[in-house]
Amino acid sequence: MGSMNQERAARLRLARLTEPGDAQIGELAVLGQAIDVLRRIRESDPTLDRVENYRARLDAPEDRRTDLAGDLDPGPDERWLEETSARYVIPGDGEWPTQLDALGAVRPLGLFVRGADLRLAALRSVAVVGARAATAYGLHTASEFGSDLADRGWTVVSGGAYGIDAAAHRGALSAGGTTVAVLACGVDVSYPSGNAALFERIVADAGCLVSELAPGTHPTKPRFLQRNRVIAALTRATVVVEAAERSGALNTAAYCRRLGRQLLAVPGPVTSPMSAGCHRLIRADEPARLVTGVDEVVEEVGPIGELAPLPTILERVRDGLDPTSLLVLEAVPVRAPAGPAEISRSAGLPLDTVPGVLLRLAAAGLVVDRGDKGFQLVRGAGDRPLSG
Amino acid sequence: MGSMNQERAARLRLARLTEPGDAQIGELAVLGQAIDVLRRIRESDPTLDRVENYRARLDAPEDRRTDLAGDLDPGPDERWLEETSARYVIPGDGEWPTQLDALGAVRPLGLFVRGADLRLAALRSVAVVGARAATAYGLHTASEFGSDLADRGWTVVSGGAYGIDAAAHRGALSAGGTTVAVLACGVDVSYPSGNAALFERIVADAGCLVSELAPGTHPTKPRFLQRNRVIAALTRATVVVEAAERSGALNTAAYCRRLGRQLLAVPGPVTSPMSAGCHRLIRADEPARLVTGVDEVVEEVGPIGELAPLPTILERVRDGLDPTSLLVLEAVPVRAPAGPAEISRSAGLPLDTVPGVLLRLAAAGLVVDRGDKGFQLVRGAGDRPLSG
Repeated sequence: MGSMNQERAARLRLARLTEPGDAQIGELAVLGQAIDVLRRIRESDPTLDRVENYRARLDAPEDRRTDLAGDLDPGPDERWLEETSARYVIPGDGEWPTQLDALGAVRPLGLFVRGADLRLAALRSVAVVGARAATAYGLHTASEFGSDLADRGWTVVSGGAYGIDAAAHRGALSAGGTTVAVLACGVDVSYPSGNAALFERIVADAGCLVSELAPGTHPTKPRFLQRNRVIAALTRATVVVEAAERSGALNTAAYCRRLGRQLLAVPGPVTSPMSAGCHRLIRADEPARLVTGVDEVVEEVGPIGELAPLPTILERVRDGLDPTSLLVLEAVPVRAPAGPAEISRSAGLPLDTVPGVLLRLAAAGLVVDRGDKGFQLVRGAGDRPLSG
Repeated sequence: MGSMNQERAARLRLARLTEPGDAQIGELAVLGQAIDVLRRIRESDPTLDRVENYRARLDAPEDRRTDLAGDLDPGPDERWLEETSARYVIPGDGEWPTQLDALGAVRPLGLFVRGADLRLAALRSVAVVGARAATAYGLHTASEFGSDLADRGWTVVSGGAYGIDAAAHRGALSAGGTTVAVLACGVDVSYPSGNAALFERIVADAGCLVSELAPGTHPTKPRFLQRNRVIAALTRATVVVEAAERSGALNTAAYCRRLGRQLLAVPGPVTSPMSAGCHRLIRADEPARLVTGVDEVVEEVGPIGELAPLPTILERVRDGLDPTSLLVLEAVPVRAPAGPAEISRSAGLPLDTVPGVLLRLAAAGLVVDRGDKGFQLVRGAGDRPLSG
């Protein structure tokens, strides 16, 4: 699948040139147009906002090592991926967690993943987040939630930070469960360094490390904040264990609300400033649900096996499709993959137009590329009539 | 006002013969018919449920001292009231807190009051309740809520029990505020005995002790539960500070909800069984509002000076009035009292029928008996057209 590899290579390059959550890039690259976006940056297309910012990175010394004149030959990031067990997962890949499509234009271009299959790990997952400067009470509670979620078969997603995050990851590991750390730096960078052993253990114990940021990239304040949108979008619910009035965890909570995911908060003593953020969430006009234990979390996210609601982004993406793409999408089966020949017959379209359309649909997260087996509809992407 | 005194004497006797919250008695006695109810008990009226239970107390040794054959001559309770500064306040009295009328058929027959004017004390009041077996955290929080409410001019109402109740009362007293203890025993009985000094201090510091139960009466489990309805009905909001899963404070919370008053709960550590009841209230289908401090309580109950909503019972009572009573009620002024002669002229009714009607309206809590000054409409009782 050459086109899919080109799309992947282009997104990999864009991940280096742009910052996470860049809506302009996300919007332009949504339908498999990453190669075109990359070309426009190289040509300093003046219709592109902030094009010189992107170009500045294209010209940065560590980037010049890559041959950009030619046809997107493998660069250092490709070589890094080849040398490690890490993958760069993009929309349309079988490993892509389609719940991220709910992020719309700020959907990640792709995710670097070290460890277990991200889509499987995140399928039934709950985020447990909170303050770095946690209290003993908060650490205890995060650890309990982590291990109790793992006991019930739920994956614990958090940010790999000191405090609540690390306690939640460790709780899940201690119960033999799966945990996903979404980082604001490259998946090869141990930040914070004190959690390096934890990160290695997550990878070793069938969990995974995830980041939008290219290998070697270090965290910044905006990267932490953008990272939070990935945590909220990956999971069915976000549990805030402890948060001061201005905690970063409240930023994750805001994304969770905006995405229509379940926002849950653990109360604490009213005398503890580290619980003030949780109490504020519970008192808000759009309130977080107070939870005292994992049974109450599971009540909110439903029993194991029940699928997450259809991401609304799928409808929005479909709205932007041309008539040919709509015909192809309607012809892709949901139960088992089908090859381009079968799909072109079913759609009543010439065979030579279908593969390109399928790759674009895969990049948009509407169909899954099953390699030699063909293409399969993402559950929910074709449930309702595509025409108005 | 001989009839009002007869009504008071009859209710005083009924308080001895019946238990708090007896809906049969409350319903029969609602329109100034206490004398008639007493007569029916004496005559063992078979249409009265449980009439032999009432009669059993009529025949009890401590009751035989009273001459019941005659015209309700003063008995030991009247003598006790004369010897102390306590009052027996009944509906229609100036001191009657009309918010209790929301209790309908389970409105107290009357209240024994020691200390300050109950109606004034309870006008702007919040209940602060919780477990006897409170934690240090709960005691600290109750005390803070008590003193902070007092600082903002709110009266703290509670049940005089050990633990949260006592801490709330003490908090209010420490801030120089007003506090009301609603007891499940006679106002002359110090239960629990360890709070005897607290009760005396409440009376001395311009607060009051309140009970439906006659002097010398000791508490029972049902009396504690019925006492809770008075706490909920007296106040604009009930704050539950700490409560285990089966705490009596949850009974007060249930009355608070049923009466449509604001139910508020203080969170605590999820590891503390003494906060489990509070968390359950916040998680309920009809949720209590989480509050972390008194500013948030005041947000719910409104600023000082704003009057509580018109008790719905007034409308229900009016619905049961005969046409003559409605004419009299419409003729009673709200701004200043008027005598029967003036009211009979205004109503266009013969003078001899008016005083009896006025006394019944006073007993029903619709007008206030101002003694020699005449009768005045209870605020809200005549605000809307009485017909239709």
